[in-house]
Amino acid sequence: MATIASLNPRERLLMGPGPSTVPQRILQAIGAPTLGHLDPQYIEYLDETCQMLREVYQTENLLTFPVSGTGMAGMEAVVVNLVEPGDEVIVCINGVFGGRMKDNMERAGATVHALEVPWGETFSQEEIAAAVQKHPRAKLLGIVHAETSTGAHQDLTGLAEILHDAKMLLAVDAVTSLGGHELKVDAWGIDAVYSGTQKCLACPPGLSPVSFSPRAIEKMDARKSKVQSWYLDVSLLKNYYMGGAGRAYHHTAPINMVYALREALTIVLEEGLENRVARHREMHLLLRGGLERLGLEYIPQKSLYTLNCVSVPNGIDEAAIRRQLLTDYDIEIGGGLGIFAGKAWRIGLMGHSATRRNINTLLSAIERCLEIK
Amino acid sequence: MATIASLNPRERLLMGPGPSTVPQRILQAIGAPTLGHLDPQYIEYLDETCQMLREVYQTENLLTFPVSGTGMAGMEAVVVNLVEPGDEVIVCINGVFGGRMKDNMERAGATVHALEVPWGETFSQEEIAAAVQKHPRAKLLGIVHAETSTGAHQDLTGLAEILHDAKMLLAVDAVTSLGGHELKVDAWGIDAVYSGTQKCLACPPGLSPVSFSPRAIEKMDARKSKVQSWYLDVSLLKNYYMGGAGRAYHHTAPINMVYALREALTIVLEEGLENRVARHREMHLLLRGGLERLGLEYIPQKSLYTLNCVSVPNGIDEAAIRRQLLTDYDIEIGGGLGIFAGKAWRIGLMGHSATRRNINTLLSAIERCLEIK
Repeated sequence: MATIASLNPRERLLMGPGPSTVPQRILQAIGAPTLGHLDPQYIEYLDETCQMLREVYQTENLLTFPVSGTGMAGMEAVVVNLVEPGDEVIVCINGVFGGRMKDNMERAGATVHALEVPWGETFSQEEIAAAVQKHPRAKLLGIVHAETSTGAHQDLTGLAEILHDAKMLLAVDAVTSLGGHELKVDAWGIDAVYSGTQKCLACPPGLSPVSFSPRAIEKMDARKSKVQSWYLDVSLLKNYYMGGAGRAYHHTAPINMVYALREALTIVLEEGLENRVARHREMHLLLRGGLERLGLEYIPQKSLYTLNCVSVPNGIDEAAIRRQLLTDYDIEIGGGLGIFAGKAWRIGLMGHSATRRNINTLLSAIERCLEIK
Repeated sequence: MATIASLNPRERLLMGPGPSTVPQRILQAIGAPTLGHLDPQYIEYLDETCQMLREVYQTENLLTFPVSGTGMAGMEAVVVNLVEPGDEVIVCINGVFGGRMKDNMERAGATVHALEVPWGETFSQEEIAAAVQKHPRAKLLGIVHAETSTGAHQDLTGLAEILHDAKMLLAVDAVTSLGGHELKVDAWGIDAVYSGTQKCLACPPGLSPVSFSPRAIEKMDARKSKVQSWYLDVSLLKNYYMGGAGRAYHHTAPINMVYALREALTIVLEEGLENRVARHREMHLLLRGGLERLGLEYIPQKSLYTLNCVSVPNGIDEAAIRRQLLTDYDIEIGGGLGIFAGKAWRIGLMGHSATRRNINTLLSAIERCLEIK
C-alpha cells in the first residue's frame, strides 16, 4: 500500500451551489461518539430532529424525517412513493432539477406532461391552472421552489388550491430554499417536499429531509403496487421513523449525520426562521448590489436569495476565474449547469456562508480576478 | 421552540450487529472542514478512498466506489443495475438478508427462484450447481457471505466457476464481512458486491462500498431499459466516480462520510488485511470459548468471526438482559431478527470492537447479568 497522507482539507469558503460552509459547532456534533440506531438515546435525538424538521418546514405532518441519502434521494423518495406505473403527472421544467424530476417520474412508470418555460423564468398560477385543465387525469404536479441551476425563485402560493380542486397533489423541490427562504408547507398546502442538508441548513451533505401531508399518505396507502425502491419505501420506513416505543429495524440510519442535522436545526431555530430568512434576503441584496457594480447581470427574472446566478461577461474564461478564486483565495463558487455551462456563475449565500464578511471577501476577490484577466 | 439539550451521546461499547465502535481517529476525520464535491482536493481524497476500497476488496475492478447510502442502498444499487424486468435470477435465502435480496429483485421486476435452507445453515456447491441446472434461464445468483441475522458464514469459493460456466453472474452481500473476513473479489470471481461502513470497517454508517466486475459492466452496458433508480444508476454515477479530470456532477456526495471512510480504510491497510482477519478470528475464538463456558450455544453451523449468534437460555428474558447491559454497563449487543426474535443474541466482533479487553468486559458483564436474573 502506498502511504496515504493525513486528512487535512483546506478551510474553503463555500459560496457555490452547495455544500455551504459548515460551522464548527456542527463539525463537532458530527464527530460525537456513534450510538446504535436502536439505542434509546439515539431514538430521542432522532425524534428531536424530526420535531425540529417539522418546525423548520412549518408543518404538523407526522411523516417528516431525513431520508438516508442526499437531496436527490429525497426527490426519488417522493417520486417512487407517490407515483404508480401508469399515473399521469405534470412536471414544471425551467432548469436542471425540473428535468431530473421528469426523469425520476418516468423511471417510476409515470406518463409525464412537461410544462416548460425558458430557463431562468418561473411559472404563473394561470399557466399551471391551464395545464391542470389540459390534463384532467393527472394526479400530481411537481415543481421546483428554488431552481439551483438558474437561481429562479418560484412563488408557490395559490398552487395548492388549483391542484386540490382537481384532486391533484403538490410535490415540491425545496433543496435550496429550506432554512433560507420562506417555506410554509402546511399554509401553502404542499403534499410532499424534499430538501438537502448541505444548503441553507449549513450541514454536511448526506441526508434529505422530507415531509408528506395526510393527503399524500392517503395516496400511498391506496397503492396497488409495491414501491419500486425497497430502500426508500415509506410504508416500511415509517415503522422506524414514526414507530413510537417499538421501532422496527429497516436500515442502519447514518447516525453521525443525524447528529449534525440535529445541531444544524438547533442553530436554525435559535436564530429564528423569520430572522434567518430576513438575513438571507439582506445578504442577497448586499451581494446583488456589489455584483451589479462590477457589471455582472443576474440571469433569472426573480432571483433566489440563496443562489445568485449571473452571466459571465463576454471574453472571460469562467472556469479560469473559478480556479483562481479557489487556488488564490480559497473561495468556491459554482459554474453554470446544463445549457448555462460556461456562461454563468452560481454564487451561493446559504446558511453560515451568508454573512457580510463573506460577501465583502468574495466581491473583492472577484474584482481582483476580473481586473487581472 | 422547546430548548434542545446539547448533544452528548454516551460512549457505548458497540458489540451488536452494527454499528461497531468508531475509533477516535475516524471521529476526528468525519469532523474535518467540508470541501465542495468537485473540489480537486476532495476528488483526490475520493480517488484515494476508491483505490483503498479496491485493496480491501482485493479487486482490480475500476468500478469500485461508495454508494451514497447505507448498506441496504448498496444492495439495491447492485440489484437495480444488474436486473432488468423479466430477468430470471436465483437468490439463496438462509436469513433476513437473503429474503431482502429477493424482495429487492422482485421490485426490480425479476422472476426470483428462491433457494432456501434453514436459518443458520449455509449452501453447498452441490446445492447451488443443482439450482443452476434447474433454472437454465437464470442470469444471476445472489448470495449472502455473512448473514447478519444468523451469524452464518457462507463459503464462496468455487461458486463463480459454476455460475460463469452457465453464463450467470455472482452477486454477493458482504456487509458484515468486508474488513473482518477473507473476501477475495477477483480470486473468487465475484461480479458484484456491496458492504457497509459501520461493521468491520469501524466507520459510522452512511456509505455502502460496492464493486462491479467487467462481466457485470457488460451486462449493464447491454441493458434495454433504464435503471429504475436515478439515484443509484451506475451508468450515470460512473461519470462522477470514474470520470478522470472532468467529473460530471450527479449528486452531492456525502463529503464528511467519505473523509471517515478514507480514514477507516487507511487504518485497515495499516493493520494489514491478513492481520486484521487473523485478529477477528482470534477474538472470535476467545469470545466463543467464554460464551460456551457460560453455557451459551452458537446457532449457526459455521459461525462468522464478526457476528456471534447464540441461543438465549430457556426462561431468560433476552430483552431485559440487553437493557441491563446497556444501562448498567454501556454495552450494546443485538437481539434476534426475524424468526430468531426473542430467541437469540447477536454479538458483534467487528473492527475496533474486536479486542481482548472488550471481550473480557462483555463476558464479565453477561455473567453478572445472568447470575442476577
